[in-house]
Amino acid sequence: MRDLQQISVIGAGLLGASVSLAVSRSISSVRTVVYSHRAQTREKARQMGIADEIADDQAQCVENADLVILATPISIFSRIFDQISSHLKANCIVTDVGSTKTGPHLWAEEYLRKDVFYVGSHPIAGSEKRGVDFARDDLFFGARCIITKVKGTDSSSIETVSNFWQSLGSRIDVMSPKMHDQLFANVSHVPHAVAAALINATKWNDMKYAGKGFIDTSRVASGPSNIWMDIFLSNAENISGGLSAVIEELSKLKDSMDSKDSDKIKNLLEKARQKRSKLIEHKIKNKELI
Amino acid sequence: MRDLQQISVIGAGLLGASVSLAVSRSISSVRTVVYSHRAQTREKARQMGIADEIADDQAQCVENADLVILATPISIFSRIFDQISSHLKANCIVTDVGSTKTGPHLWAEEYLRKDVFYVGSHPIAGSEKRGVDFARDDLFFGARCIITKVKGTDSSSIETVSNFWQSLGSRIDVMSPKMHDQLFANVSHVPHAVAAALINATKWNDMKYAGKGFIDTSRVASGPSNIWMDIFLSNAENISGGLSAVIEELSKLKDSMDSKDSDKIKNLLEKARQKRSKLIEHKIKNKELI
Repeated sequence: MRDLQQISVIGAGLLGASVSLAVSRSISSVRTVVYSHRAQTREKARQMGIADEIADDQAQCVENADLVILATPISIFSRIFDQISSHLKANCIVTDVGSTKTGPHLWAEEYLRKDVFYVGSHPIAGSEKRGVDFARDDLFFGARCIITKVKGTDSSSIETVSNFWQSLGSRIDVMSPKMHDQLFANVSHVPHAVAAALINATKWNDMKYAGKGFIDTSRVASGPSNIWMDIFLSNAENISGGLSAVIEELSKLKDSMDSKDSDKIKNLLEKARQKRSKLIEHKIKNKELI
Repeated sequence: MRDLQQISVIGAGLLGASVSLAVSRSISSVRTVVYSHRAQTREKARQMGIADEIADDQAQCVENADLVILATPISIFSRIFDQISSHLKANCIVTDVGSTKTGPHLWAEEYLRKDVFYVGSHPIAGSEKRGVDFARDDLFFGARCIITKVKGTDSSSIETVSNFWQSLGSRIDVMSPKMHDQLFANVSHVPHAVAAALINATKWNDMKYAGKGFIDTSRVASGPSNIWMDIFLSNAENISGGLSAVIEELSKLKDSMDSKDSDKIKNLLEKARQKRSKLIEHKIKNKELI
């Protein structure tokens, strides 16, 4: 594991700003530099004191970094890799907080210099809130963080990035980007699509009568649509497969109602109830429920 | 509006026990009698002091009541109407807390004596928790309560039942059982089916990685499957129609991903985001978010 003296973050939204705040809190010996392409965000970030330095220039932000973290929409990762590559120190480690990982590994391979190291990160933290205003120094505490690696990934860099997230309070799982993207299609991206479909299928006049159940079931649909479009595009095949499975389960329920098959209805609902109950027990046991 | 001296509740689950506790708290001059068919529940209800009297016999529970409230599964409403009909005082008002209303109105018409009055109630309160142990005297405070009436419903009884729920802190909407059942298919029963389908479509090994989004999106699927089977059976056509609409919206999203149509993905997600944002604003404005 390497010694980190400077960590540079590109992007000062909820995640980027929270990473910087969390570093200041947990590993305060490390210098933090943050860049945002928006002047207004940089101004806000300065006022809030989210980093030791708010850089006005992306190249300047990364040039002395031992670890660079991309916290922008995934859709511009390839461009940023291309732009920063020549400005990085040799042996610099690059990671990101993107919600899909197959694309970032491919782009890093294509655009980053061969003497810098890329490791994927996906901290399972955030909220439907967005922007620097909602940044928190404890956002990663108790959260899972998935580290992704491919065959050629430098093992010392994996260790460094893992230790970095652990020092912010996260628990680490290491897996391939392919496995990551299948998994998160099913537990994150598909639920988002389901929530959005539920909202879009419901008439406004009916929705006014919505209770807590509807509000909770649809909560994630309030996430920023540009970020989620990027996720959906960069993990389209896995999400499409997951949606087929949900459509199939909904069709089973619909069929059981159309045929008034009470046993089938009961079995489908009871299966779901038990499975979720097991999930909640598992989460409580592992102290993963906030 | 009539003067209520005794309110009798059949069923001592979460809702029945909470109604009785709420009456004791808010209109303490009224005598409360509760019946449960389970000896163990009656014992627990006595220990908890949820009513002035816990009756061991259903007929005895209702015989002096000015208002009888059914708080059992909907599937046995018709049987209970039949069983209690001859034991009710003339001019007694009967209502219930069932989540669908078309069936109860039909059964009341068929099984209740012509000199007693039926009005439907659906307090929008509850939780995925169940049983007398979770009863709360403030469960109905700030909640909506839908009162249902058909052409022949006695208007003075509608007024009495409305005032009753208002005195427990609820806000009243009056509508037909048909409109109620369409509305609640869309905002309550369909979300339950969607949550159950999401859980059933997700592999256990993936689910262990579920974050807050998945947990919230699926929360309502933890509701008791026997109660929900009753709701699904008694509102099958409306729910089936609502599920078709959700399946259609999911298919749109799936198609947009299969064709990598970023504009279409963005539009669908942004439409959902804006619609939910409008819903939350509406709920906050009306002080309906807890």
